[in-house]
Formats: sequence, structure tokens, C-alpha cells
Amino acid sequence: MSKPVLYSYFRSSCSWRVRIALLMKKIDFEYSAVHLVKDGGQQRSEEYSTTNPMQQVPTLVINGQPISQSIAILEYLDEVYPDPPLLPKDSLQRAKVREITETICSGIQPLQNLVVLQKIGEEKKNEWGHFWINKGFVALEKILNKTAGKYCLGDQVTMADLCLVPQVGNALRFNIDMSMFPLISKINEELSKLEAFKKAHPFAQPDCPEDLR
Amino acid sequence: MSKPVLYSYFRSSCSWRVRIALLMKKIDFEYSAVHLVKDGGQQRSEEYSTTNPMQQVPTLVINGQPISQSIAILEYLDEVYPDPPLLPKDSLQRAKVREITETICSGIQPLQNLVVLQKIGEEKKNEWGHFWINKGFVALEKILNKTAGKYCLGDQVTMADLCLVPQVGNALRFNIDMSMFPLISKINEELSKLEAFKKAHPFAQPDCPEDLR
Repeated sequence: MSKPVLYSYFRSSCSWRVRIALLMKKIDFEYSAVHLVKDGGQQRSEEYSTTNPMQQVPTLVINGQPISQSIAILEYLDEVYPDPPLLPKDSLQRAKVREITETICSGIQPLQNLVVLQKIGEEKKNEWGHFWINKGFVALEKILNKTAGKYCLGDQVTMADLCLVPQVGNALRFNIDMSMFPLISKINEELSKLEAFKKAHPFAQPDCPEDLR
Repeated sequence: MSKPVLYSYFRSSCSWRVRIALLMKKIDFEYSAVHLVKDGGQQRSEEYSTTNPMQQVPTLVINGQPISQSIAILEYLDEVYPDPPLLPKDSLQRAKVREITETICSGIQPLQNLVVLQKIGEEKKNEWGHFWINKGFVALEKILNKTAGKYCLGDQVTMADLCLVPQVGNALRFNIDMSMFPLISKINEELSKLEAFKKAHPFAQPDCPEDLR
């Protein structure tokens, strides 16, 4: 069997989620860079669009099969490579992890991704990004106040944590005042100490420009 | 044990997904209407916001525990009430169902929901909604061309179908030209014949105004 291939862009927060999972589960993979800005966006090429009609990263090609959409990939990896698990055993606890995950991946990230900011336009994109990330983080801070331990749900690293850190990464790019979100900040800090999270960081990727490292 | 309570708004496509699941699985539930427009939006009340800090519908309160975010609810229901299943058995097939689900629930719906349209403003909201639904449906039609049978994935009703029908419902409200999407239209038509899908339709809900029925 050939190695899994991850189509990724160093800055993409959705790719970042999957990189953490692959590293946590020690799955050896090949990194294939898709530059979302260069050449008018390499994700729009005919070849890539055939594999990923939404023209987004990430795509994971595994056992010759492409899977796109980051949470679909995380759920697949957790079923096929269960160690370490990204979800707790208890169904209600799993629901809470998925609730936090979806709050980020449907409630916040889609509103501040590259293609939406391009549509909003250069002049208004900063206010727009600020608005949705702040709104989402106000809610997320309240949700986490009921669920968090060291991480988003108690002291086990879960799928929710794999979404939280990249979303904080986006917030920092928007210069969001993170002092308003002490719990999110604390969890992000704890997670950032872990080896898989360090290696999955945008600045540690092969397609990250030298001057950002 | 008290009956599960679904906090829902008749028009909300995310509530609609969960209504279909509850009906398919024959789970007896109480319907609690949250009007997203009246009183400045009842989802913004202090009481509801405590349960659902994102101030969104649906929320399902089950065994006294609130779960929010529609896909988190669907996954929970499928684990605890497995009959009929909303996911296939094979992991790769499950990934494909979740890929289609996420294409809708992260890639399309969040960009055209009520709160985003309110931010975009009365003048531009129609063009905005059209743009994102059309863009998403162009991709979805291609994805489904590789996976569909009678329904989104082969001939089994899955989580993806529970998201497709409400998204087509939204498209119709935006007067999207559905003749551009023959496969989505055909699957939607097949699904709309099923009893659970009929009963879950917005116009069949207790909070639907008389003149829309």
C-alpha cells in the first residue's frame, strides 16, 4: 500500500486539524502542498477539482481513496486508527465533543475562510472576520466553562481540541483580543505544548515561506 | 424519564434535519417552538442562551441533558437509537456520507443562514444567498455523481439525505434554478416521498403560520 497523501496548505485551519490527527496517531503520510493564492488558487486546477469539487483543502487520499472535508477525515481516522482516540467512549460525552467541534467548524470557521473574505472584499474583510470570530468565541467560552478540564472536554485530547487550536490561530491572524477569552486561551496554551500540535503548526510545514518560520 | 424536547423553528434547516431523524427512528418527542424573528429573536432570550450559547436552533434536551448543533445530535441519536441507521457500516462509506453532510452543513448552510443574511443586509442578501448555494450545489452535484443511487449514497437513507432535503428547501426559498442540478433534484424528490420527510417538513410543524400550510 502506498502512503496516505494529505493535500494541505500550511495556513489552512482545516488542513491543520487533520495534520494534528495524523501526527497524534503516528500515521506516516506524504505532504502535498496546494497553494490557495498562487496561480489564482491551485485548488481550482482541473486535476484537484476532480478530486475535491468544493476546491478546498484538505483532501486525504488513503488506500487510493480520496476523502475530503476535515471532520469527515477525522471521524474516518478515528474509526480506522483508534489509538489514541479522538472521542470519549460515552455517547453523551461524544455528543459534547462533537457539539464543540461543530460550533467551530460550522459556526465560526466557514464565515472567515479565504473564499468568503475574497467575496467580502479587501476593505471590509477585517471587520467581518472580527465580528464572526468574536461572536463565536463568546459562545464557545460559555460552552467550555461547562465542559473543560485541561482541554476542551476534561483532560483527554479530543476532536474538539484539534479544531480549537487552528481556530485560535485564525483569531490571532485577525488580531483578536484573546484576553477576552481566558479559558480558550488557557486550553490553547496547554495543547500547544504537545508534540503533535507543535509539528502540525503552519510554520512547521514544508510549504511555509522561509520568512514566516 | 420525560420525553425528549426539541427546540426548533419550523423554517430552520438545521432543526429540520433533526426532526427527520427523530421521526425516522420513531422517537416520541415534544416540540418546543423558538421563533427566530419574533421578539427580536427568541433564541436570544436569557433562558435559551444559557442552554444554547450560540443562540441557534436546534437544541435537543434528552434525559435532562441539552445537546446542540444538528450533526452532533444526529450522531448521538444514531449511537443511542441505532435503528434505522443513519450511517453505513463500512468506514470508507461512512466517510463519504460525512463528506456530503459536511459539504452542506459547513460549506453551504452557514453562509446563508438567518444571522448572516441579517449582517449582509436587505439589499444584498438575495445575491449573497444565491452565490453560495449555487457554488455549493455545483460541487455537490459532482460529488453525488460518484456516490448516489436512489439517495445520496446508494439506496440507503443516511445523514447526508437528512441534510440535503432541508438545503434544497432553502434553495427553493431563494428561487434557485434547480434545473441546473438534476441529480440533487431527483434525490430530493425521492426522499420527499418518505413518511418521516413529509412529517418533518416546515409546513407540517405546529409553529408554521396557517397561511403557509
